[in-house]
Amino acid sequence: MSAEIICVGTEMLLGDILNSNAQFLAKQLAQLGIPHYYQTVVGDNPERLKQVIEIAISRAQILIFTGGLGPTPDDLTCETIADFFGVPLVERPEIIEDMAEKFAQRGRVMTSSNRKQALIPEGADILPNPTGTAPGIIWQPRPNVTILTFPGVPSEMYRMWEETAVPYLKSQGWSQEIIYSRSLRFWGIGESALAEKVTSYFNLLNPTVAPYAGNGEVRLRISAKAPSEAAAEDLIVPVETQIKEIAGLDFYGVDQETLASVVGKLLLQSGETLSVAESCTGGGLGQMLTEISGSSEYFWGGVISYDNSVKVGMLGVNPDDLAKLGAVSATVAEQMAVGVKTRLSTTWGLSITGIAGPTGGTDTKPVGLVYIGLAGPKDEVASFEYRFGQTRTRPFIRHVSACTALDVLRRKLLTREP
Amino acid sequence: MSAEIICVGTEMLLGDILNSNAQFLAKQLAQLGIPHYYQTVVGDNPERLKQVIEIAISRAQILIFTGGLGPTPDDLTCETIADFFGVPLVERPEIIEDMAEKFAQRGRVMTSSNRKQALIPEGADILPNPTGTAPGIIWQPRPNVTILTFPGVPSEMYRMWEETAVPYLKSQGWSQEIIYSRSLRFWGIGESALAEKVTSYFNLLNPTVAPYAGNGEVRLRISAKAPSEAAAEDLIVPVETQIKEIAGLDFYGVDQETLASVVGKLLLQSGETLSVAESCTGGGLGQMLTEISGSSEYFWGGVISYDNSVKVGMLGVNPDDLAKLGAVSATVAEQMAVGVKTRLSTTWGLSITGIAGPTGGTDTKPVGLVYIGLAGPKDEVASFEYRFGQTRTRPFIRHVSACTALDVLRRKLLTREP
Repeated sequence: MSAEIICVGTEMLLGDILNSNAQFLAKQLAQLGIPHYYQTVVGDNPERLKQVIEIAISRAQILIFTGGLGPTPDDLTCETIADFFGVPLVERPEIIEDMAEKFAQRGRVMTSSNRKQALIPEGADILPNPTGTAPGIIWQPRPNVTILTFPGVPSEMYRMWEETAVPYLKSQGWSQEIIYSRSLRFWGIGESALAEKVTSYFNLLNPTVAPYAGNGEVRLRISAKAPSEAAAEDLIVPVETQIKEIAGLDFYGVDQETLASVVGKLLLQSGETLSVAESCTGGGLGQMLTEISGSSEYFWGGVISYDNSVKVGMLGVNPDDLAKLGAVSATVAEQMAVGVKTRLSTTWGLSITGIAGPTGGTDTKPVGLVYIGLAGPKDEVASFEYRFGQTRTRPFIRHVSACTALDVLRRKLLTREP
Repeated sequence: MSAEIICVGTEMLLGDILNSNAQFLAKQLAQLGIPHYYQTVVGDNPERLKQVIEIAISRAQILIFTGGLGPTPDDLTCETIADFFGVPLVERPEIIEDMAEKFAQRGRVMTSSNRKQALIPEGADILPNPTGTAPGIIWQPRPNVTILTFPGVPSEMYRMWEETAVPYLKSQGWSQEIIYSRSLRFWGIGESALAEKVTSYFNLLNPTVAPYAGNGEVRLRISAKAPSEAAAEDLIVPVETQIKEIAGLDFYGVDQETLASVVGKLLLQSGETLSVAESCTGGGLGQMLTEISGSSEYFWGGVISYDNSVKVGMLGVNPDDLAKLGAVSATVAEQMAVGVKTRLSTTWGLSITGIAGPTGGTDTKPVGLVYIGLAGPKDEVASFEYRFGQTRTRPFIRHVSACTALDVLRRKLLTREP
């Protein structure tokens, strides 16, 4: 028993909209324990949609459609499905009634084109749409083929899925083992280096372990198939524990945790405060920190010292050092960190100065060269040099710089002498 | 001649990531005038991937793959394609060399698992990856079948597409009638209000005009079908001109222009400088401004005054006013703007103070209440109150606050007396 997701709409073929429905349904199916192996996007074209149905019923038993249920002439999903299975459409008075009521509530008049939405295949059940006008269907046109249709509007689809489709799918006893996943997140190690350390885990069958990388960070997704979430947890936890031990400090958090949330938690624990001085990130580090609601407990603020005059005037960076060593130097990073920590009276001061590109690089100071400065409670100060690569884009270098600064502080907080 | 997009990755079947690559490629194909009728997502499974290739070559001539080119064992796209067409993989020394150089630049060591990325089907051309390590291929394994592969990491894929795939596809003479679009961008007006002003344009057939809303902003997309970009331009420009005239100051830019880039251009023109003081956005306004390469010409920096002590100490906000009126008040916004402008010696000072939520709201000062302050070259200062809604999320309120601050400055720069 497996499902296939079929998203219908020419707007996806034109790239006008992002297919977030497929992601939503994929996650939901995994949680229900219904496997699915293919997703297909096709335009509002009956012939091509029929071909897609033909292929889908050859490899899946549950077909989940989104899109093409609206009132306009290009909305053809329901009639094409009926046509494919050779079943006539019938007008369902309860749909007309429901639509009329909704239009009245909004003070609008139901148009004749809306009547089209009341036509569903003979023998199909209505899948009610509590928020919009277009209902879906639940239909078994043949043994071993079950069809569910949803409108393309995500908010309408979500409610219909949760209120009707989930109970229905559960009641059919199709849920096999659920797939439950946890992402372990790593910073400061590349995908291939991490993969080599944990390579033996890639051969596991349940749970499986798979790496993926993006935006400068690597994740390992541990996925377990089990009859329940608790049973899946039991499979995941030992592997998770072992991998964390192998990865050591390169591991920083799971699932929705971010470097900023992890640093925030550590600062809350120690009752310490933080300020930042940013040059090439221009505020991005502060923004990351303040994404966390409640960050005002430990994050006091900072200085965006984009121009050198601000480094001198607001942070007390030595103008001679600036002239001699340049703004992108270890010394200036350290002075920025000390300056912001002192002036904002925080426990820690964290700074970033670097060349985000695409212009501004030289032979000795290429694009991607970044210094992170960290000043701490014992008047210690340190700086760290990074070369994020001359081929990287400006947004990438800025993002990775801010993350790396947080990671520098995270490692310090975890490893300092008491 | 048509293309098919095939996205490979179990993470998409689990709903772990949103398939933004498909949207990017769809848009690009439309712009190139290469039709595509299907998109398929399949997991990291060689047998299923082969079935997908079988189906795709029966209905399309250009197969575009993303994902599965990484160094780990589950990255199987390239070898599966080679296997399908019965062609061996060969190691290409130029790929090894390029990878070694990139690892050296980043001060990392190339691992043996990376060597896998140098294996491509015999007879295939390398599709170079300027930013990452995994190259793609361009390959005609059979007459009437052309294969292009890309890694799943969007930023790497985009550059490979633009630098190599686009020139290649253009040179093949496959482009039919192109679909060429322009997005007009608006700030400070809602979707329905704008739609009512330009409703007559929604009936046009070529170009078409369609509204989109999201993240606090409204766009109108004008799309023309024509044999060439120039002919499409001729269709778009008159409609664009008329809509701009109708929208007035609510229109701020086209396509990739942002409020930050538009403000930057205006400041460059007037030879003026800007500094910012941010509370609830925590650096987000500075980050937006510095996304623009070259922003150091006019953006000098700012103060992230998250804690009240920083508002007083670094910006000179009056502690009595803070105590009496609260940090989220018109007076404090104005003092922040004046403070940062004065201390950083810039022409303009722009400030934000507000309640981003989800906590911290009260009856009189609900979540979503935001004040923007603007101090200018004639010692003028003004503040503006916004209520972005108590049901909005923290990221939304922060994003819209930063955009609105930029919009306040944009309108001022465009309407001030000379």
